Amino acid sequence: MTGPAPHTPETIRWTEDGLGLRILDQTCLPGARVELELRTVEEVEEAIQSLRVRGAPLIGITAAMGIAALARRAVQAGVGREELDRRVEGWCERLERARPTAINLRWAIERLRGVRTADRGDAGALAEGLAAEADEIHAEDRRMCRAIGEHAADLLEDGDAVITHCNAGALATGGIGTALAPIYVATERGRTIRVYADETRPLLQGSRLTAWELSQAGIDVTVLADNMAGALFATDPPDIVFVGSDRIAANGDVANKIGTYPLAVIAKHHGVLFYVLAPTSTVDLDAATGDDIPIEHRSPDELRRGFGPLTAPEEVAIYSPAFDITPAELVAGIVTEWGIHRPPYGESLADAVAKAQEVRRTGTTS
Amino acid sequence: MTGPAPHTPETIRWTEDGLGLRILDQTCLPGARVELELRTVEEVEEAIQSLRVRGAPLIGITAAMGIAALARRAVQAGVGREELDRRVEGWCERLERARPTAINLRWAIERLRGVRTADRGDAGALAEGLAAEADEIHAEDRRMCRAIGEHAADLLEDGDAVITHCNAGALATGGIGTALAPIYVATERGRTIRVYADETRPLLQGSRLTAWELSQAGIDVTVLADNMAGALFATDPPDIVFVGSDRIAANGDVANKIGTYPLAVIAKHHGVLFYVLAPTSTVDLDAATGDDIPIEHRSPDELRRGFGPLTAPEEVAIYSPAFDITPAELVAGIVTEWGIHRPPYGESLADAVAKAQEVRRTGTTS
Repeated sequence: MTGPAPHTPETIRWTEDGLGLRILDQTCLPGARVELELRTVEEVEEAIQSLRVRGAPLIGITAAMGIAALARRAVQAGVGREELDRRVEGWCERLERARPTAINLRWAIERLRGVRTADRGDAGALAEGLAAEADEIHAEDRRMCRAIGEHAADLLEDGDAVITHCNAGALATGGIGTALAPIYVATERGRTIRVYADETRPLLQGSRLTAWELSQAGIDVTVLADNMAGALFATDPPDIVFVGSDRIAANGDVANKIGTYPLAVIAKHHGVLFYVLAPTSTVDLDAATGDDIPIEHRSPDELRRGFGPLTAPEEVAIYSPAFDITPAELVAGIVTEWGIHRPPYGESLADAVAKAQEVRRTGTTS
Repeated sequence: MTGPAPHTPETIRWTEDGLGLRILDQTCLPGARVELELRTVEEVEEAIQSLRVRGAPLIGITAAMGIAALARRAVQAGVGREELDRRVEGWCERLERARPTAINLRWAIERLRGVRTADRGDAGALAEGLAAEADEIHAEDRRMCRAIGEHAADLLEDGDAVITHCNAGALATGGIGTALAPIYVATERGRTIRVYADETRPLLQGSRLTAWELSQAGIDVTVLADNMAGALFATDPPDIVFVGSDRIAANGDVANKIGTYPLAVIAKHHGVLFYVLAPTSTVDLDAATGDDIPIEHRSPDELRRGFGPLTAPEEVAIYSPAFDITPAELVAGIVTEWGIHRPPYGESLADAVAKAQEVRRTGTTS
């Protein structure tokens, strides 16, 4: 778990006074690198809903740091413990509804709720406890990204081409990403890895974000529209598929950005292995299968006028799920911070979740 | 081959003086309905290359009418027969290179070359001969669209949902389209048909054009991004897939708009039948398989800044083929003006091409 840090962007940090967050506004990339300060619950919520911060791990971190910063501000304004408890619970309830599919958001908020319940000190102590937990969530995420990268780098040989969808990179996390982590690690180890980045309609996280962060890190990246992957597999197939996930069901069914499932079907059709890379915090043991995962639908206008001009008639219907479900049988392996899980996934994923909970309870780090 | 004409747009016609063309500029849809006059070979070429007119049948018609109009103008300017022959050949050579994949362009131009070779009259007679042939190509296309629609309408039941890709509708032809023709015909027959239109990156012919023309005709249409078809098939599968084609190889491999092949793979994965609808002029018996079909690659900027703002970093590579090849084994049937061809396609397609040539030679119409 060592090696030089790759040249990846910092997605989130505390403001200098610790009373707010500074985020890289991902909606402005790749045209401009804009930092934004978030100091109210409305601003944190808006940043998550508008995808200024996005990626399942990063929105969990953002919610946790956001609630902690709000608590500190409340303490500074003289709010007492009882009132702070009420406010913290209100922020938790509001932010856990900000986006429905990514389980990490709920998971991070549950951890802050745990701190609030366990903490017996005054308002100041609670605020600092929340901030420490948010810092720990962030630090754990960095370690998890690194561990995922180390495990999955073994899947890559020098000269390999990886295809990925959406952005499960540094920009989606507090570290070096999930699906992109092994690419950074393999590059550190001196291998040359090429990446194909699906554009990822409607919000173009692949062409705007994945292409940008890989290119900044000096990695060879080629952008294609999502519908061009078929031609690529037919003429010059990539060696492997790496994607992230927003929620993994107990049986290994995977919710990820819309377009992941057809990519898995195409890869299967061409005999190319399809891997999902995500921390155990993405696993939802309460969801038996993908059918139990709620799927967010986005506003029709994201398709209809995503770039300004009208690109579909006002009067027609729009179908725009934000995620799809890739059934476990199309997934060659799921890489968590605990290693590469192989099908059938049930027991192996449950074990990893249990180990992660154990580490958190005992304070032993992986 | 009767029934009321559906409410479909007129894509092309002569200017009133017969010395130019008036086209519906499809790059302005759905925001505005703009007509454009083309009076020079540069204007005709630019309209084809910039996809102001597009769709394999329509670009053949445009090239034919364009050359005829240019010939009439030359005659009016006093150009004699020998010089007109030279000019016509120059226009033919220039326009047949305007786009490389659609075979209909070459096919229409070959028909004009045939007129030039056969005609023994003066310059004026040649110009009128060319215009008559262009009119005949246009009229034949209308008849072919109608015939394709009649044959394929039998594949549709009341209440069916069709998914289509790109635009193989009235806007792609001189008539009621190819892939959309059976939808218009079934609607005329009183059936209710719903359509899912893939957006079709990068130029959005599905959301801009298919959605527009179906909606104008009162047909229920839902737009989705190309990468959302997987989720649709998994949750609420359409009953059938209809697409057009830019070139069909002798063995039934089909070149069509990029994204068609992955749609065929997904449909196969879900057991939904995939049909290709195109006139015999799309069949290229000189191409034994899809490998023999040249694939146009489009400018990187169509992906990088298709709607104004930069959506991929300037410095990254772009992979942007305009077409892909769907292998014959994924195609349940090819519908031409002669009926529904079933695999294996070789003999059946060759017969249809021979019949079409015979009709043209003897003047017997289908």
